[in-house]
Amino acid sequence: MKITILGNGSGGAFQGRNYTAHFLECDGQYFLLDCGEGTQHQAFRLGIPIGRVRQIFITHLHGDHVFGLIGLLTSFSLQGRTDAVEIFAPAGLRQLVEVHKKVCGVYFPFDLKILEVDTEVSKVIFENKKLEVLTIPLRHRIAAAGYLFREKPKPRHIRPEQIEVWKIPFSAIKSIQNGADFELPDGRIVPNSELTTDPSPSKSYAFCTDTALHLSVAKVVRGADLLYHESTFTEKHREMADLTNHSTASDAAKIAKNADVKKLLLGHFSNRYENLEEHLAEAQAIFLETEIAEEGKLFLV
Amino acid sequence: MKITILGNGSGGAFQGRNYTAHFLECDGQYFLLDCGEGTQHQAFRLGIPIGRVRQIFITHLHGDHVFGLIGLLTSFSLQGRTDAVEIFAPAGLRQLVEVHKKVCGVYFPFDLKILEVDTEVSKVIFENKKLEVLTIPLRHRIAAAGYLFREKPKPRHIRPEQIEVWKIPFSAIKSIQNGADFELPDGRIVPNSELTTDPSPSKSYAFCTDTALHLSVAKVVRGADLLYHESTFTEKHREMADLTNHSTASDAAKIAKNADVKKLLLGHFSNRYENLEEHLAEAQAIFLETEIAEEGKLFLV
Repeated sequence: MKITILGNGSGGAFQGRNYTAHFLECDGQYFLLDCGEGTQHQAFRLGIPIGRVRQIFITHLHGDHVFGLIGLLTSFSLQGRTDAVEIFAPAGLRQLVEVHKKVCGVYFPFDLKILEVDTEVSKVIFENKKLEVLTIPLRHRIAAAGYLFREKPKPRHIRPEQIEVWKIPFSAIKSIQNGADFELPDGRIVPNSELTTDPSPSKSYAFCTDTALHLSVAKVVRGADLLYHESTFTEKHREMADLTNHSTASDAAKIAKNADVKKLLLGHFSNRYENLEEHLAEAQAIFLETEIAEEGKLFLV
Repeated sequence: MKITILGNGSGGAFQGRNYTAHFLECDGQYFLLDCGEGTQHQAFRLGIPIGRVRQIFITHLHGDHVFGLIGLLTSFSLQGRTDAVEIFAPAGLRQLVEVHKKVCGVYFPFDLKILEVDTEVSKVIFENKKLEVLTIPLRHRIAAAGYLFREKPKPRHIRPEQIEVWKIPFSAIKSIQNGADFELPDGRIVPNSELTTDPSPSKSYAFCTDTALHLSVAKVVRGADLLYHESTFTEKHREMADLTNHSTASDAAKIAKNADVKKLLLGHFSNRYENLEEHLAEAQAIFLETEIAEEGKLFLV
């Protein structure tokens, strides 16, 4: 998985930090997570092939996460796109799209599916051959869900020398990769453990924004390779965080620690912070493997 | 009048040219003309005090002219703005604002007035002490109006030496500035022409986008000091212009010539043009006083 950070800012007047959008490439498939105003501008600047995206996941309908969406879809239309687009979002997005069709002359020459997500439960909402996406219930001022991108269990690694030894036909390989034993022509059984080694680990990326500290998030993202968790504030502005249902860097680190993830990415920073050293220090005091989600930076999982 | 060009691009995927927005300062009042996606980003980059704007004029509801508006208003809200905002726009904007209030948690702690403009007639829709704004009916795929900003006739210049000669009291000055003669205590009349010289000329700025060639525009903008007229295409793409109800650089120049304006600004360029020399040459062949509306450039009227 390759994750590019298009914006790490939060709501409020634009003051240099871009609004939220992450571009995710996973096994030749492209996904967009949130789409704040100016996402297509950022994609252009960073050389991101945003036109290849087929699924867009919107966490919630606040402007800094969604005000670039209709513009992006309009650009797709004006480029003559024919590939379908699926958008996963909390209730309300359909109304937003419909009113733009009605009053702004917006039209879609491609199949646009809007799939409403339930922000109260964690469940699989999308899957393809190699990947599944689960919702992560969040706690914000309006309905919000994070998204967990998780590779499905991978096939076990074949031990080629054993395939030779037992003269196993090619037609049996797939089921052996999936864990089956092999029955020899004389009826003897070769156990799978002799024919394969463990598969490569399945990677996962969790995208959690916007939310107050919500401990049940840790359950859903447990063991994730990379957790992006909003940290709008530092503890210095604890009251603001509580008032606005946002997290501090400490809150994000608590979730990371609790969920035993491999790495934490901090983002969605309030404009009041010119530099982010305090965020980093505050989080690392609780969870060392923390990084800032710098704009334009590519993170590999 | 000071006009700053925030964007000179047209619709379609962002490829470096910003979407339409002009910032106009006139006698200490600030106006925004159109508000494409990323307008607040551009205002920040250019150091434009966009928060001082009290009137916003939207030509039409296509995304490249309006998709930055709700984001801008949201930012105003998050900054705790209390100054009223008036938005002039064709029908439909209210619906757009209402659906955002309903589904995006958008709220306005200031008085937001949406004033629907009739795009079929030219009339005064706004005035203050020194300025009036008229609609300019345009011809596009959806209802569209340009806007003519015109200073009201200015007071005549007093000839101080004549005021001395006739011992005219201060209380009479204002009516003399407005053209009145002065009656002396003995009943004799001093004609205004002896007491004053002609006022400074009233300046005007016409903002015409988006539109096909529409000759009646020339009538409304006649004699304007500066005419911004869209020129999405050059004549090489005449068919595209006709198909999409846009103008070529030649069309813009024809309006400028016909209206006998002082200067023409070209803008709203299609992404297909990397450089704009052809636009300029094409327009200047018809109307010499033509310039490109370069992004970030300040034009004085």
